Amino acid sequence: MTAIIGVDAFDVRFPTSLSLDGSDAMNKDGDYSAAYVVIRTDDPDLSGFGFTFTIGRGNDICVLAAKQRGLPLVGMAVEDVVTDLGGVYRHLKSDSQLRWLGPEKGVEHLAMAAVMNAVWDLAARVAGKPLWRLLTDMTSEELADVADLSYLSDVLTRDEAVALLKELEPTRADRVAELAETGYPCYTTSAGWLGYSDEKLRRLCQEAVEAGYKHVKLKVGASLDDDIRRLRIAREVIGADASLMIDANQVWDVPQAIEWVRALAEFEPLWIEEPTSPDDILGHAAIRKAVTPIGVATGEHGMNRVLFKQMFQAEAIDFCQLDSARLASVNEILAVYLMAKKFGVPVCPHAGGVGLCELVQHLSIFDYVAVSGSLEGRVTEYVDHLHEHFVDPCVVKNGAYMLPARPGYSAQMYDATLATFSFPDGDYWARATDS
Amino acid sequence: MTAIIGVDAFDVRFPTSLSLDGSDAMNKDGDYSAAYVVIRTDDPDLSGFGFTFTIGRGNDICVLAAKQRGLPLVGMAVEDVVTDLGGVYRHLKSDSQLRWLGPEKGVEHLAMAAVMNAVWDLAARVAGKPLWRLLTDMTSEELADVADLSYLSDVLTRDEAVALLKELEPTRADRVAELAETGYPCYTTSAGWLGYSDEKLRRLCQEAVEAGYKHVKLKVGASLDDDIRRLRIAREVIGADASLMIDANQVWDVPQAIEWVRALAEFEPLWIEEPTSPDDILGHAAIRKAVTPIGVATGEHGMNRVLFKQMFQAEAIDFCQLDSARLASVNEILAVYLMAKKFGVPVCPHAGGVGLCELVQHLSIFDYVAVSGSLEGRVTEYVDHLHEHFVDPCVVKNGAYMLPARPGYSAQMYDATLATFSFPDGDYWARATDS
Repeated sequence: MTAIIGVDAFDVRFPTSLSLDGSDAMNKDGDYSAAYVVIRTDDPDLSGFGFTFTIGRGNDICVLAAKQRGLPLVGMAVEDVVTDLGGVYRHLKSDSQLRWLGPEKGVEHLAMAAVMNAVWDLAARVAGKPLWRLLTDMTSEELADVADLSYLSDVLTRDEAVALLKELEPTRADRVAELAETGYPCYTTSAGWLGYSDEKLRRLCQEAVEAGYKHVKLKVGASLDDDIRRLRIAREVIGADASLMIDANQVWDVPQAIEWVRALAEFEPLWIEEPTSPDDILGHAAIRKAVTPIGVATGEHGMNRVLFKQMFQAEAIDFCQLDSARLASVNEILAVYLMAKKFGVPVCPHAGGVGLCELVQHLSIFDYVAVSGSLEGRVTEYVDHLHEHFVDPCVVKNGAYMLPARPGYSAQMYDATLATFSFPDGDYWARATDS
Repeated sequence: MTAIIGVDAFDVRFPTSLSLDGSDAMNKDGDYSAAYVVIRTDDPDLSGFGFTFTIGRGNDICVLAAKQRGLPLVGMAVEDVVTDLGGVYRHLKSDSQLRWLGPEKGVEHLAMAAVMNAVWDLAARVAGKPLWRLLTDMTSEELADVADLSYLSDVLTRDEAVALLKELEPTRADRVAELAETGYPCYTTSAGWLGYSDEKLRRLCQEAVEAGYKHVKLKVGASLDDDIRRLRIAREVIGADASLMIDANQVWDVPQAIEWVRALAEFEPLWIEEPTSPDDILGHAAIRKAVTPIGVATGEHGMNRVLFKQMFQAEAIDFCQLDSARLASVNEILAVYLMAKKFGVPVCPHAGGVGLCELVQHLSIFDYVAVSGSLEGRVTEYVDHLHEHFVDPCVVKNGAYMLPARPGYSAQMYDATLATFSFPDGDYWARATDS
């Protein structure tokens, strides 16, 4: 028997605010950060790695919450954990005292994501498979068992979930073979951060086109004049056939969103992302109705599966941008994928930040192989930041994520990264505080 | 000038799990707790006290978050703070890095509530008035200025808010005089905790009737047979004319809620409280439609004003049970009261826990005097626990909250309480850990 002997959590922060990487109308100066979890076992060669993503201050709060959330794992047998990933998830989330602090939202849910991401990484390592393969090797029944379907039975029962998965089970291998050739299509946000100059924007759009991207996303919402000028530049560079997406990062009220997006309609954006509060299901539905044919996309702050259920029920979104470190890991994400399939909404996961690209590539691959069976309207975010800190970084070629091959969920950071960017005592921050 | 010289936060926990006070179908063993905030000034006789409420584990996480959230207050002049309560609120909530951890939900929002509750307490103390009086002495314009109307303009503009408030401004004094006589009506949950025996339930219902209560609430949702037996006892004791409310604390999915509530319809409950996930706006709307004429009530876990906006838009609830320590204090609560007025939904605040009764009495009084002008369908929760720890405890007579008279928000705890119940080093917990 291999036993879990500890669940550690680390506060890792990168000084991205210095270069305005990641700047948008809501988040002007984020330091991309991870509340990074390591599940240690008594086998020195076996650990599980996971994290949630934040943008700086408060990352320590997620670390504290993750330590508490992970405590029940200590002393459990690895074999018991990896053979009952639904049971472990339900056990961790059953703490009613911690539940009060959400429920299933905010810091506690981010912490749950960090811990369960590490559990899934551990399971994939034990299986000797990349996470996407672990998932695509599970039967439809096994997948339905690990999915968190609670509070969802008005739109999706377990039987329906199994039936949805059964449809594609016989042909999974074909799609794995296909993706092994082509990779999973992605788009880049690296070009369009709000803090970048027009010259930098033009150059980065040009580079994106040359790198094979067919979609480019720009941040909007701080100034309408600036938005018009920047969108004109981008459309000029990428041409009429490529897709241009815009992202307001929640800065508008509903009426203002409608007005502003209509004023940008001439640039034919594929979608407007996060036009308003991420909690406003009915608001997104109203915006969608008013700005059609421009699509509405949201989800990176979508707090849990109950929110997504309603986004689907209310026909509020054209693109579902679930977040791999905000939803409570694969268990909850599976439920969202299944609902998205039922309602016919493509899932285009949020990524970027630190490590999110490493995670979402597994999810998108799994989705195509086992759930949606379609690439239509689907494109996964990619941002070219901070991959060098990961032992198994994502690989993007010709605008597509290549299939990860190494065991795990690609979540492990280098020890040197921890030594340098741990906050506040890592080398970088100790120096920054000194000077 | 008086300056704020520190914002402290304390982890205070009461061992309520020992007596099963507060037990329900979701929360079997809560230790009622407060993340308790003290704003210190350089005037030794002037501090502000506030808190958020939790049920035990994780209270330390809220304490940490409250300390961080309160930091920008340090060094500010008290005069500047209390004369710009809208500006202070917006300043505290403008931290985009902390916003990422919600936004406006979960631990970070609970912490915002704790800090801003203390700010409002401070403001009322400076004014030498109980909070309800501070609010009812503000003009309609001043109230609209402090209300957080962001993300709400699709249902309520500032002009509409002012107009709603103006209606009742001339007659506020009449209603203050009326409440000074009668108090604000409340109901008791103390009778119906799930962990109590039938005998204790019968006795407590009898005592509630004798104490003048016209409403009694029971917890349901663990076992239908038990619920039927307990509701029969309660209805027998309180009679056909008194109101019986039932509370499921979120244990059901939507279809199950409908089935279960219909099975209890013979006892004619006034409302079913928290039938499902607090996030499920459309689910509550579906349940409401299916169980009419039984009302649907929810809100104690209602995370923010955007959720309540949608509850009103979707006609999902008959009773709005906002929580004084989960919403971000008076600023956000004001917005919910104003929307409730517009949509004609009575607000019956959640209370109980520790200190929530002390807070909500001020809010209910303010609502009647300045916003709703009506007591119809309105009754505020009251639970007879832990009031002895407060310097200015609420006073309930004949089933009604008497008007608080002392300056502040009634949120201050005794020093002896902190010394005894601070976790883990207070006398009680140090002893409990030793033995």
